[in-house]
Amino acid sequence: MARSLGRIYKGFQRLGSLSSTQTQLRHPPTTVSVRGTTFVRTMVALPSLFFSKPRDFSLPNSSWGSEMMRLYEHYNSQCEVETEEGEKQEGPWRRLPSYNRFLKYATGGVYLSKIIQSKARLFTRNIRDPGAAFEYVLFVNSEEQKCMCIFQAGHLLEGPPGHVHGGAIATMIDTVTGTHATILSGPVMTANLNINYRRPIPLGSTVLLESSLDKKEGRKTFISCKVTSSDGSKLHTETTALFLSINFSQLLLGE
Amino acid sequence: MARSLGRIYKGFQRLGSLSSTQTQLRHPPTTVSVRGTTFVRTMVALPSLFFSKPRDFSLPNSSWGSEMMRLYEHYNSQCEVETEEGEKQEGPWRRLPSYNRFLKYATGGVYLSKIIQSKARLFTRNIRDPGAAFEYVLFVNSEEQKCMCIFQAGHLLEGPPGHVHGGAIATMIDTVTGTHATILSGPVMTANLNINYRRPIPLGSTVLLESSLDKKEGRKTFISCKVTSSDGSKLHTETTALFLSINFSQLLLGE
Repeated sequence: MARSLGRIYKGFQRLGSLSSTQTQLRHPPTTVSVRGTTFVRTMVALPSLFFSKPRDFSLPNSSWGSEMMRLYEHYNSQCEVETEEGEKQEGPWRRLPSYNRFLKYATGGVYLSKIIQSKARLFTRNIRDPGAAFEYVLFVNSEEQKCMCIFQAGHLLEGPPGHVHGGAIATMIDTVTGTHATILSGPVMTANLNINYRRPIPLGSTVLLESSLDKKEGRKTFISCKVTSSDGSKLHTETTALFLSINFSQLLLGE
Repeated sequence: MARSLGRIYKGFQRLGSLSSTQTQLRHPPTTVSVRGTTFVRTMVALPSLFFSKPRDFSLPNSSWGSEMMRLYEHYNSQCEVETEEGEKQEGPWRRLPSYNRFLKYATGGVYLSKIIQSKARLFTRNIRDPGAAFEYVLFVNSEEQKCMCIFQAGHLLEGPPGHVHGGAIATMIDTVTGTHATILSGPVMTANLNINYRRPIPLGSTVLLESSLDKKEGRKTFISCKVTSSDGSKLHTETTALFLSINFSQLLLGE
């Protein structure tokens, strides 16, 4: 069993090293937050030989309301800016693509294939019907060490009548802070989420999640996150989150 | 706006009073945890005139594995016990039914109808494919002031490869502790969830959530919750949760 897991781990390492190479070629690593374990999604960086083009769920679709679109355009327009000489260059923000499978499009032998061929789907992207569940897009600002997420809550996320389930809010917080921690510290695992719920979120509304680095200490990355109304006037939740840096092997061995 | 919400609230109150009456007729109130707001589900208690029979998601289906079934039978067999005289009577545990819509089958005028006719679905029951997402059943023990939840995690809840998303775990914790708080204190809203993640949960596995009352102070209900492997040998998460008692009107007015 341990040997098998070791082989899977080596597969991940191999994919990871491919990812790193490609990262230097201006393909930034795509991250996914997973119960706080946010991994670099290697599929983006793999040669096209290995995959067909996956759907990027973070791009606008017909379900996005005017507030979602307005905010998307606000941050997206700052991903590439024009210099005084009229040249385009990277802006302060970077949009992170988002997929619904882990390593869906990679190959890696019998062990990886078992994972790839499974029916597993990322929790936040497990419903394909546009607008029904989690519609969101993440932007990262490396200089300010911040992540912003625009989140439109669909009708399948109900908790109290007409409002978003506390677990769905926690899911978005884990996703955003976990992604942010990974960008800052590499692969991590959520160790703690401490969420204060201040005000319920109406179903169908668009809110902002803002994630900020508090501090890093050894293996620990401390993040805080606020969920506010789209204009920032209402505070819905406040969270502190702690992430621990890990190796894939720790996860695969269930440690 | 306030008047309209007031009318909705009155509708809820009316339904609530019907529920209470039926409760005395051995139809226990069914609760639903909603971002911590756990409400008595009145539909169970409404006269059959008002509804067609809804699907109870907490009953066994073909996707339930042997561990899920074993634990279900363990607790279900303690819901009704036989006396020495051979008479049947209530046991220490009570199973809570679970539906995917709030007030789906009730009527209550134009305002309630708007809610009823909406496409909204309870977050934890928004996928009908058996075994794909959250399979769970709750049992409550009033004497011990405990709730037990048996939870089988489906393949659509993935976070880290092969493991359950931290947000899906938080969702189950919110659901179980919120339901428990409502049974103890009436309608409540989650004020805080403080979750320590100790060990990841493999996709497809069955785990136990055990919710215990810590204390009640005025409007506050303090609950703690452990998620363990089905045999209790592995601790996956530890949580403290705080709930505040509310009126429906507070929620409807977004307070």
